[in-house]
Amino acid sequence: MTTQQLHEQILQKKSFLCVGLDPDLDKMPQHLLETEDPIFEFNKAIIDATHDLTVGYKPNTAFFEAYGIKGWMSLQKTINYINENYPEIFTIADAKRGDIGNTSSMYAKAFFEDLNFDSVTVAPYMGKDSVEPFLAFENKHTIMLALTSNEGAFDFQTLNAGGKELYKQVLETSKTWKNSENLMYVVGATKAEYFTEIRKIVPDSFLLVPGIGAQGGSLSEVCKYGMNDKVGLLVNSARAIIYASKGTDFAEKAREEALKVQKEMEEIIDLKFQV
Amino acid sequence: MTTQQLHEQILQKKSFLCVGLDPDLDKMPQHLLETEDPIFEFNKAIIDATHDLTVGYKPNTAFFEAYGIKGWMSLQKTINYINENYPEIFTIADAKRGDIGNTSSMYAKAFFEDLNFDSVTVAPYMGKDSVEPFLAFENKHTIMLALTSNEGAFDFQTLNAGGKELYKQVLETSKTWKNSENLMYVVGATKAEYFTEIRKIVPDSFLLVPGIGAQGGSLSEVCKYGMNDKVGLLVNSARAIIYASKGTDFAEKAREEALKVQKEMEEIIDLKFQV
Repeated sequence: MTTQQLHEQILQKKSFLCVGLDPDLDKMPQHLLETEDPIFEFNKAIIDATHDLTVGYKPNTAFFEAYGIKGWMSLQKTINYINENYPEIFTIADAKRGDIGNTSSMYAKAFFEDLNFDSVTVAPYMGKDSVEPFLAFENKHTIMLALTSNEGAFDFQTLNAGGKELYKQVLETSKTWKNSENLMYVVGATKAEYFTEIRKIVPDSFLLVPGIGAQGGSLSEVCKYGMNDKVGLLVNSARAIIYASKGTDFAEKAREEALKVQKEMEEIIDLKFQV
Repeated sequence: MTTQQLHEQILQKKSFLCVGLDPDLDKMPQHLLETEDPIFEFNKAIIDATHDLTVGYKPNTAFFEAYGIKGWMSLQKTINYINENYPEIFTIADAKRGDIGNTSSMYAKAFFEDLNFDSVTVAPYMGKDSVEPFLAFENKHTIMLALTSNEGAFDFQTLNAGGKELYKQVLETSKTWKNSENLMYVVGATKAEYFTEIRKIVPDSFLLVPGIGAQGGSLSEVCKYGMNDKVGLLVNSARAIIYASKGTDFAEKAREEALKVQKEMEEIIDLKFQV
């Protein structure tokens, strides 16, 4: 998928919501646990109930790996289900990978070729040759951590590193890498005041914004400082949507929560773009 | 496994070699490709041929994930094979994981519980709450990236960050985290001159040292500056050992290469510890 296609989908759906798929057996409705593949059944129901309100799904690989081979099978079924039934959806493997060049190539192969995701999240610590193998894939997107939504973000990301905060160094340096037009960045919603500075460095890039909902970030603040003239935001919400209910009505309740966020986004888009 | 047990194994085998398992179908002997699970058969043969010369095996998860579910099954069979047949061996899931707290907990569950590795590699960029969930596991070890062996290490890791190089900040800050005694660190062999400084910060920690062999690092240099009075090093070699031959003699040739490294290590141990 191209960023232009993603942009068009956002305007059409009046949504820049991405639903995080963090399937946790302990938080799922009881009746699903009796099915053969509860994780897939859960994801499928959430996807069917929300696909018209969201432009992206972001399966978090940790929540699949924790269940071993069975979990990896559920991940494969989930991405296949999205690709087959809702091919317009932008898919993100939230995997936070990154290693020396020949290893990163194998991760890129895993997520872009074997699983056929549109994008994957990566960590910047190992630098250029750990990220460029991902960037080599045409019409695939590499979403690099810049400033994350958690408390630990302040341990290293905001240190003054070589004259500016580390996350700014990461943003600036990454722009010099080969095929850097395939980069997007993770910027946490809990740090809305930082978006102005970030937009000076990467005015045109899509930003993937976690931290709305359970983590406490504010959508209007994020949009105020982070939106560009192509929207340029994918706002992720996971727990607040997918665990809205633990009953048999979980998918319906997930839709209600997604709809609330989509409506808020529609207002913002209408106001800003006078559509 | 405790670090004391690892130390005892090192003295007994006179080796601090760790063999990296990076199974790549394109580099494997032709005759294995006709078996049902070439990746496992390759690993099994390498393990059987080298287990008395090495104290650790480090499967690189990327090389399994690239083959999807089949790859993940090969990973599970490989770790089970080691744990069942050579329980004294220290096992490392080279996965470079790290995410917000509840996600890191799932990764820890995946590698420490589901797959039963002794240790896993993690990335430091997201800070304290992304690593502490791994540290909570007793007698399991979390090997955090400090200074890596690749060129990209100089993009961010060596920037002056808050008064000292970022990798030093990472080392120092991590010592304040809960259960930090369960930390080890990745320090690349291609940067031997840095070991002196690193040992001032973490004199007692085990360091996992990649970059010997194909990447060009020198064993004697690493030992000169990096060894502590409990050895404190795990030196990894992958390609130079496992791909020593592409013929039917690949396991035998792998043993020959591993033996060369082990003999060099034996000399160093004998000299330093006058065993």
